[in-house]
Amino acid sequence: MGVDDSLFTQYKKKALVSLGRALEKGEVDRKIIPVLDVINSFPCFYTTSSCAGRIMVLEVPSVGRKKEAKILGKWHHKINEQEIQECIITATRGQIWLLAQSPIFHVGVESMKKTDSLLSIAIRSGFKNSGIKTKGKKIIIEITSTERVDTPLGKDGTMMCSTEYLKFITEIINYTIERGDKKIHRLSKNLSLLQC
Amino acid sequence: MGVDDSLFTQYKKKALVSLGRALEKGEVDRKIIPVLDVINSFPCFYTTSSCAGRIMVLEVPSVGRKKEAKILGKWHHKINEQEIQECIITATRGQIWLLAQSPIFHVGVESMKKTDSLLSIAIRSGFKNSGIKTKGKKIIIEITSTERVDTPLGKDGTMMCSTEYLKFITEIINYTIERGDKKIHRLSKNLSLLQC
Repeated sequence: MGVDDSLFTQYKKKALVSLGRALEKGEVDRKIIPVLDVINSFPCFYTTSSCAGRIMVLEVPSVGRKKEAKILGKWHHKINEQEIQECIITATRGQIWLLAQSPIFHVGVESMKKTDSLLSIAIRSGFKNSGIKTKGKKIIIEITSTERVDTPLGKDGTMMCSTEYLKFITEIINYTIERGDKKIHRLSKNLSLLQC
Repeated sequence: MGVDDSLFTQYKKKALVSLGRALEKGEVDRKIIPVLDVINSFPCFYTTSSCAGRIMVLEVPSVGRKKEAKILGKWHHKINEQEIQECIITATRGQIWLLAQSPIFHVGVESMKKTDSLLSIAIRSGFKNSGIKTKGKKIIIEITSTERVDTPLGKDGTMMCSTEYLKFITEIINYTIERGDKKIHRLSKNLSLLQC
């Protein structure tokens, strides 16, 4: 890293090195690679932690304490209810939650002036819950959407819902993944219109 | 509104008039009035739409289309499972969702420089999901938390889960309301340390 680099350039270089490593290890979902590539091609942006959208089964002490959660199952694609049931077998203590989350992109931005165009494209592409999160001196745009499922399924290793309900909810979480995929595609297309 | 007023001052005056009307009509949850009062006492901030946290039963066409939702029930306090069952009787078509949302405050801020102190107090008070949302020329801080439940319960007027499961989930949504109340209290206390 050159000593003359601005703080932003340093952040971007670091983020790209880290992304390169994650790509090598196959840790980045293929679906979002085109979006990351376009964003990183602009001198005023870089991507940090991003996710294609996911389904998760977690074991947590209680509501809102997801940082202390144990992941029982995680998928970036559609699943069936048996997959949920299978991973719950390992649950022992605490609440069991089923989560479906929309895609999320974190984008470092050079200055507040540069945030408008990307935010507007994100919102136009269906990521209506997008906004700016500052992190110390970093300006981060969070691109994300409103589709989500946050459902408690059971506690202390025991399911509290029926298989029929699980089937019903699995259809819905799969639909959130499908809808997320479409939005990623739309974002990727709209990003070609971005000027920075 | 004076012609010499800055844009920010105009926004603030408008927001305070609108808050005054809502207070008169009893539309503002008492729990959050102390927080709104402290925030509005600072020259560089004003509050816009805010909520003490709520439980809702909605009828929606599908995931993510909550704007087209019909509200079947709404509460800002703890409830029991019968109350959920009773409001579902009116459901006819679409998915039935149960939502529990943490408190949310929207705060207009004079400049980006002034956002740091309030954001830091919000996060320290447990509102970990807080961030900045720009709206045209307005700078808005959204103070909010991670606790939430977003659960589909049934479709086309029919419950897809058992009463036992509904009891289980009601305990959890009540806990999110309780936790939200504590955070409002903590925020109200910590705001007295704010310098602007």
